Parts: sequence; C-alpha cells; structure tokens
Amino acid sequence: MIYFDNGATTFPKPASVVRAVNSVMQNTGANPGRSGHRMSLQAAQIMYDCRKNAARLFGLGEPENIIFTQNCTAALNTVIKGVLKRGDHAVISSLEHNAVVRPLEHMKRYGVTYSVADYVEGDDDATLNNFRKAIQANTKLVVCTGASNVFGMRLPVERLAAMCRIYHILFCVDAAQTAGVVPVNMQDSGIDFLCTAGHKGLYGPMGTGILAVNSDIHPDSLMQGGTGSMSMSLQQPETLPDKYESGTPNLPGIAGLNEGIRFVLARGEQKLLNDEIRKAQRLFDGLSHLPGVILYTERPAINTHTPVISFNIQNHDSEEVAALLGDRFNIAVRAGLHCAPLAHRFYHTEDSGTVRAVMSAFTKPVQIEYFISSVNKIIKLLPKKVAIEDKNVLK
Amino acid sequence: MIYFDNGATTFPKPASVVRAVNSVMQNTGANPGRSGHRMSLQAAQIMYDCRKNAARLFGLGEPENIIFTQNCTAALNTVIKGVLKRGDHAVISSLEHNAVVRPLEHMKRYGVTYSVADYVEGDDDATLNNFRKAIQANTKLVVCTGASNVFGMRLPVERLAAMCRIYHILFCVDAAQTAGVVPVNMQDSGIDFLCTAGHKGLYGPMGTGILAVNSDIHPDSLMQGGTGSMSMSLQQPETLPDKYESGTPNLPGIAGLNEGIRFVLARGEQKLLNDEIRKAQRLFDGLSHLPGVILYTERPAINTHTPVISFNIQNHDSEEVAALLGDRFNIAVRAGLHCAPLAHRFYHTEDSGTVRAVMSAFTKPVQIEYFISSVNKIIKLLPKKVAIEDKNVLK
Repeated sequence: MIYFDNGATTFPKPASVVRAVNSVMQNTGANPGRSGHRMSLQAAQIMYDCRKNAARLFGLGEPENIIFTQNCTAALNTVIKGVLKRGDHAVISSLEHNAVVRPLEHMKRYGVTYSVADYVEGDDDATLNNFRKAIQANTKLVVCTGASNVFGMRLPVERLAAMCRIYHILFCVDAAQTAGVVPVNMQDSGIDFLCTAGHKGLYGPMGTGILAVNSDIHPDSLMQGGTGSMSMSLQQPETLPDKYESGTPNLPGIAGLNEGIRFVLARGEQKLLNDEIRKAQRLFDGLSHLPGVILYTERPAINTHTPVISFNIQNHDSEEVAALLGDRFNIAVRAGLHCAPLAHRFYHTEDSGTVRAVMSAFTKPVQIEYFISSVNKIIKLLPKKVAIEDKNVLK
Repeated sequence: MIYFDNGATTFPKPASVVRAVNSVMQNTGANPGRSGHRMSLQAAQIMYDCRKNAARLFGLGEPENIIFTQNCTAALNTVIKGVLKRGDHAVISSLEHNAVVRPLEHMKRYGVTYSVADYVEGDDDATLNNFRKAIQANTKLVVCTGASNVFGMRLPVERLAAMCRIYHILFCVDAAQTAGVVPVNMQDSGIDFLCTAGHKGLYGPMGTGILAVNSDIHPDSLMQGGTGSMSMSLQQPETLPDKYESGTPNLPGIAGLNEGIRFVLARGEQKLLNDEIRKAQRLFDGLSHLPGVILYTERPAINTHTPVISFNIQNHDSEEVAALLGDRFNIAVRAGLHCAPLAHRFYHTEDSGTVRAVMSAFTKPVQIEYFISSVNKIIKLLPKKVAIEDKNVLK
C-alpha cells in the first residue's frame, strides 16, 4: 500500500520502534513502578527514559512533567475538564478538532462556556486579534490546535502563549499534528500544556499520547486509581506524573514511543519539517496543474504549514475519489471530515469533505509522482457530473 | 526470571499475542474506523473481532457493548463517574482496590457518598447481608471486586447482581483479577457493567482494558472527542461503542488482546482456573509447612478463590523478603500494599504489606517447588528479628 494517511497514523514506523515494542512483549513484560524485581525496574526505566526524551523534545526541564495518556484526546480532556469549572470560559480557534470541541460542548451542562476565534489565513495579526477579542473576564483557558489536521495551516501558538501570559490565562496546545514535525520549546514560549498523540509525528504506536505540563497550576485529574505510590492513602497523589497516571500504563506502546521520539531527535525536527514541506509542495504543485482539482490552502510553506494536502476533484465526493485511489492505485488516503467540523466550515467543504494526503519521513518522491499521475488518471475515469449542489436538488 | 507477579501483569504472553502485536506494528499500522483504505478496514476488522471474542467470553450478545479502554482503572472511572451524580450513594466491598476507592473519594467533592460493606471470609450470606444493610434510598450503584487482588478471596458477584436487580441498583464488577480466570456470564447473572484489564488473566498487552456493558442505562462518557462517526456533530455520539471510544485506540494492544482472549477461550476458563488453583494449593501447602511463614487466607479452593497466595515471614517486611527472592533466587513477586489499602485492613497487614505470588497458565510445578525451597532458604538467611510492633516502638 502506498501510504499517505500519515495524518491519522504514521506508517511505516522506524524499525527501532517495532523492535522496542516486540522486545517489551517478549522480554520486559512486567508492570512498571509496582514491583521491585528486575523486570519491573527495567519497565520503570523505559518509562523514565521516554519521559526524558519527550521533555527534551518539548523543551521541558522535568521529565516528571511528561504524563502518558492513551491518546491526544485523553490529554485534552484532562486539561479541559481539569481546568474549567462552573462559570469559566474558554477560547478556541475555528480550526479545532472534535477532540477539543466535543469536550467543551459536553462541559456546557456544567456551566462552562466557550467562544470560537476565527482563524484568518495568512494574517497572524488578525488571528491573534480575534483571540484577543474573544477573551472575557471569566476566560480561564485558551485551547488551540498547532495546525489544522485537515488543511495544514499552522496557528501562531508562540504568540498566543505570550498573549495568554499577559492576560493570566492558561494556554493549551493541541499538538496532535505538530509534535515531532514543528519544533516547540514550552519553557521558552510559555505554553502551559501541550497535548499530543504518540502515533503520528512522534512515530510511536497507536495507544500512546502525552500531556506535557509547564505550569504550576495542575488541573484536577480526570481519573483516579492505583498509582503504585502512597498506596495506603485513599486520595489520589498530587505529585506528577502519578496524579494523572492511574492504573497500568501501555508499556509496550511507551517503549515504542521512546524510540519514535529518539528517531525524531536524531533526524532533527526542523530537518524533518523542511523535507516534508518540500514533498508537500511537490504534491501541491503537481495537483494544481490537473484539471478539476480543487486545492484549498496557499502553497504550503515551512514557516506556516504542516505537510498536509487536502483536495477534491470538482463535483465528486471525497469518499469516491479516496475509494478509487485505494481500489485502483493502492494508495491510502483519508477522505471525509477528519473529525474537524469547524475547519470544514472555513472552506465550505462540509458536504464533500476532502481527500487528505499527509507526508511523513518515509514518504518517497517517487510515491508523490505516482500519486499525482494516479489522480490524473482518476479524473479521466470519472464521469462528468453535474455540480454537487445540483445533484442534491435533484434528489 | 521465575515470574510469579501475574497479579500485576501476566508474563510470558502466549506466542500468538506477541505475534499479533508485531504484525500490526509491521503490517496493519493504520487508524481503524477513520479511513476507507484496505489497511484501515483491516484494522477495524481486528477491533470488531476482539469485541466479538470478548462478548463471547463475558456472555454478552452484542459485540458493540464491548468498549476498549486503556486499562481497568479507566473503565471503572467511566462507570463510577458516569453513573453517580450529586446526592447519589454507592456501596463497595471492604476488599476494593484504589481503582474503585480513589474515584469515589474524589467524587465526594461533587456530593457523592459511599459506604463500605464488610467482606466476611467463608460466609457469603453474611457478606451479602452487609451489602444489603449498606444500601440506602439514594444508592444508585454497587461496585465490587470479583476477587481480592491481594488475597484472592472471591466475592459472590452473581448473588450481588441478583440482589441489585431487586433493589433497582446498578451493579458493576471490577474483574481485573477474575476475567479470564473465573467464568462469568453477564446476561445470565444480570451484571450491568464489567470492567477489566486486558493484560492479566486475558493475556493481552499492557495498555488494554475493557468495559463490558449489559444495561440499557449507559453512563455519561468520561471523555469526548473524535470517533470517526457523525463528524459534523459537535455532540458525542450516543451509540456504543463510539460514545466511550474517543481518539485513536490502541490497535496493536487490541490485536494482542484478541489473541489473548482466543487463548483463554481455547483453553477454557474453568480448566485454567482448576489448574491454577491446584498450583496455588501446592504453594499454599508448601509454604504452610515452613517455620515463621504467615499465610492469611484459608487454603485456596476452586469455587471461592483465585490463584493468589499472599504471605509474610514473621517479623520481616514484605519488601525485604521480595528483594531477597529477586536478588538471590531470581524470583519475581510483588510486595507491599498492592494499591489496596482496604484489603490490608482486613488482615491487619497495613504495616508489613504482603508478598504476593500469583499463578498463570504458564506457571510450572517445578517453579512452585523452587519457590517453596527458596523461601525456606530465605528464612534461614534472615536474622532473627524482634517483632515488627516492637521494632516500631524502638524507633
């Protein structure tokens, strides 16, 4: 399979990641932090090593401030629900994923409100100004994606962090699409919370996520339980990372994530980004010359985008095109709404969805050329249809 | 390592489990339920297959009622927080793990209260009566461990389920120590919710857990986010399993869990239990003949226990004994409190903790003999100490 679905999960993984998972399954399958025997201590060492590497990647001093979660969604829920209480208000961008929007919608029943600040393409000043205008006296948290998972435009998270510091508002980045791809230093930029998946740009296995904490304010825990620490206490420990890590962690996954982060550290995030943006540019350019292809964003650039290309073929549903790419050309992409309804409103793609192709470190130039020529062939295959709007009217 | 820490995590895993995890990492690393391409559909098929097998194991008709969680703790938090609202009351047993107690303690701040029903060893009628007496007009939920994770005594969950039906109270079993070991049929017995880890008696990888739902009452979701379904809606879907499965699942883990459950189904739970109880009996008998060994429970029996032996050597801390077992004899056990303070109050082992040895399908008779002779050697190695109580007085 020629895999371009890296925005959902990167594939393939570095060989070191696969090996690390397998090694835990075969050799180090003990519960970390629970027992004192050799295998349990080895397991705890793997966890700590991954915390150290993640802290280094995100510019955090303390490995303990790296919390392991099941996925980015769990990390975001922890921050959103742990920070916001009755009467509080949050601000989010108009490009957010359902992992941000749905928890906030849910919190409405507990007296929490939120506003949406419109992203303005190519004008960070205007975007920032929209956030500023959305801030209210009771605003306690700004949550913002690092980049649109559908279209790849990046938000000015460093500037938003600085603004939030001025207003004494906590700032949380949804880095699901940017961690491992876009360099970030939480301490330098003053980002309070960074949530990310482990299985995308960090090249770890599915089932891993990180909440990185750079604030003295620690949200309430979303879950409580056994932590292997202070076991006689019926209260959840308040120390990090135990406060947020109840129950047995995903040790095989974390061992793999550790190797994934090592891979990113060794290659260098900026170099990975540069390479992948160049690939995205080639795909963008190639598609832009094909008749009937709709591209939504500006040409992706290193300072403003992640390596994501969303497109459609005029008058055809994204699912139809994706199915043809898969069935006829063995190309894996994602179609539809990508769990991000707000972002689709931005480009009016709620009905069609988009076909999304995302680069990874393993995407080869020859695959991009094959992708472009495959789309070209599909265009010739497809019947000339009436416009989607007309079609809907005819139903 | 001669591994007896199976109460924390079973090790080794069946070869099929290791292979399945590795295969996903290498061949099927796509996000299930998100995209329409072949690898994503294969991933979704693995998830569905695991739901089917788990539903079969737990006596549920609908695979959709099997929810995947990160661990048992996450499943328990979902039930406890999703069911109990301000003014509600819960009843738990005196053998509960912190995965039950700490969420309930946390819920006190939201106006939820709970009572502890004392377990009575060897007298299910009395235990049941204690639960009955603890029920109040506002009792909405009974949560009860299937068996003590420290001492292995089982609770009469089928009878408790029947009683809860009469009182119209929801009943949740913490099956972390019993799933895959003690046969259960949720439909027949009327258990509303069963929470379990995947990495213990189900022989799956760490990072997996299950919430099995056998009730028309579906607790509120603890987390919301992208589900790959109804993506234009800002509201979390209400259908199972999507309601409780936000964000990317642990596909490699679930693939392994699927093979673990297959392993249990193929061997037969009752046969696994019979075999392991026999091993536990041999360990109990062997230890009971050693001078200075304290055993707490009655001799384990097939109908009343799980294959868990907790013990101490008189006047010595459990951690000291476990360290000697590990360092000198390469035996892995767990010592201390096992995240279950309530259970330790039962046998007054709060200070010493206990040394815990738990059998699995892979425990060999020769390992049990080696264990017994190693404890015997340790007894001779250890200095004769004053009693722990006296030692504390001397400090």
